[in-house]
Amino acid sequence: MTKKIQICEVGPRDGFQSIKCAQIPTEQKIEIIEELLAAGVKHMEFTSFVSPKAIPQMADAADVTKAVLERHPDADLFALVPNLRGAANAYNLGLRKVCYVVSLSVSHNKANINRTHEQSLDAYREIRATYPDLDVIVDLATTFGCPFEGKYEDPAAVVAFLRDYVDAGMKAVCLCDTIGIADPAQVKAVIEAVKAAYPELHLGVHFHDTRGLGMVNTLTAMEAGVDEIQSTLGGLGGCPFAPGASGNLATEDAVWMLNEMGYDTGISFSKILAAAKHEKELIEGNYSGHHINIEQETPCRA
Amino acid sequence: MTKKIQICEVGPRDGFQSIKCAQIPTEQKIEIIEELLAAGVKHMEFTSFVSPKAIPQMADAADVTKAVLERHPDADLFALVPNLRGAANAYNLGLRKVCYVVSLSVSHNKANINRTHEQSLDAYREIRATYPDLDVIVDLATTFGCPFEGKYEDPAAVVAFLRDYVDAGMKAVCLCDTIGIADPAQVKAVIEAVKAAYPELHLGVHFHDTRGLGMVNTLTAMEAGVDEIQSTLGGLGGCPFAPGASGNLATEDAVWMLNEMGYDTGISFSKILAAAKHEKELIEGNYSGHHINIEQETPCRA
Repeated sequence: MTKKIQICEVGPRDGFQSIKCAQIPTEQKIEIIEELLAAGVKHMEFTSFVSPKAIPQMADAADVTKAVLERHPDADLFALVPNLRGAANAYNLGLRKVCYVVSLSVSHNKANINRTHEQSLDAYREIRATYPDLDVIVDLATTFGCPFEGKYEDPAAVVAFLRDYVDAGMKAVCLCDTIGIADPAQVKAVIEAVKAAYPELHLGVHFHDTRGLGMVNTLTAMEAGVDEIQSTLGGLGGCPFAPGASGNLATEDAVWMLNEMGYDTGISFSKILAAAKHEKELIEGNYSGHHINIEQETPCRA
Repeated sequence: MTKKIQICEVGPRDGFQSIKCAQIPTEQKIEIIEELLAAGVKHMEFTSFVSPKAIPQMADAADVTKAVLERHPDADLFALVPNLRGAANAYNLGLRKVCYVVSLSVSHNKANINRTHEQSLDAYREIRATYPDLDVIVDLATTFGCPFEGKYEDPAAVVAFLRDYVDAGMKAVCLCDTIGIADPAQVKAVIEAVKAAYPELHLGVHFHDTRGLGMVNTLTAMEAGVDEIQSTLGGLGGCPFAPGASGNLATEDAVWMLNEMGYDTGISFSKILAAAKHEKELIEGNYSGHHINIEQETPCRA
């Protein structure tokens, strides 16, 4: 019996956003997105509708959206939106799924999006009320710990925080280890607590590869019963503590492991590895200081 | 209740051996070994007694052995020996523990140590018979797959291979993923099969970080009941397929995770990280082309 897991690629948002020294041309972004889809990726956060002043890397969100929606109307594609305005932009371009970010950490929520928890909840409710047919999944940042407040030892805090969002209609949440502080024991405890409290919730996880723990935390979360794992092609992005070192869990590595373990990922390892190599060439060739540390070769199979 | 696991550092053998462009001075090797012991490392493969023509990096084995044995007579320190001559050299310097390598793969055993399986077993028996009071642990190379023969899908092959060594008195074996091909499902199956067949055996594992799987394979093996995990400071060494990319499981990363999970490793994370940084400076400063990709910072803890 093959096992199922949703692999959600978030590199075109989380990864491309991390290239800060220049704009990646829109057509190059679309090229990588097309390669991901051609490799078998079915779920993808592909851009964000945010202020181009705050995040100029995502200023071409509308153009990218038009291009990919036209070619792939049936793919599970979504964009990050921080507020009603972003949701409106996404909705008016035809998107029917977005993700919305709030931090479990009060201080990180303030630093990251300049809101109190109450303001974040109000803005979420506003989006839900204005666009009732829009799927609004929630990215819960700093689920496992925060740069200002340290590690969260009590899973009950996650469960309690999610209550208002579940009551406001949230159907899916992604538990994000924003600073790469989670360990497998904590991951297991948090997932089990959230599943026990909200068995109907679609659960995702997003881990960084800080200290080499991206894969072990991800597999631990899968064994605890999550529906979706997030990763980025080449591991690009999301490395707040150690510039140049490992960032997100690399999609090609996750695909290799899961295919080997008999999961039906639907993603071709050789195609996704080729996409990662192409991305590496593109990024390292054009944006100095960025190094993608992908494994160039993979062990043989009989 | 704190959980126990033996962390066996093999960097001074497996890692230093991988620096091929020059000799690391003996006093620098000893410096790193001392830092490892000071950080709380209790089990270490610290050199090998091999032909200096074949592996000139280990030509100072006698000097390193004298230095560390004199200062740390009670530590669990051992050296790799390929044959009776190596075992004699180690024994005569006072060592009472060595490890001996044989490959599950016939073709890799031939390529690596130029022996048939029968010749390898004979040499093992010869060492055991000559030095009955010498602990001879066995490193089973290519346990999970081989560069020539591919991945091994059947755990029964491992169990069958070990029978002659158990009968010859082997008390401890380390299952080595020489080419970094193992996946967690395979690891679990192999460990369970070996434990079921030989419940008294002291079981270790040695994984590479190819495709980011070092940690997940290691934790999977621990959950399946191994007694010991191997790693190298800074992840140095053992990267047959992707030069410059990830090598062995990094000791500092394993220590971070296990300390976080409540294991009693006895190793100070801050001290082992400092040792890894020192090693990185030493290697990168002196041996061009070698890059140790350690995380420079670690997330804060409240």
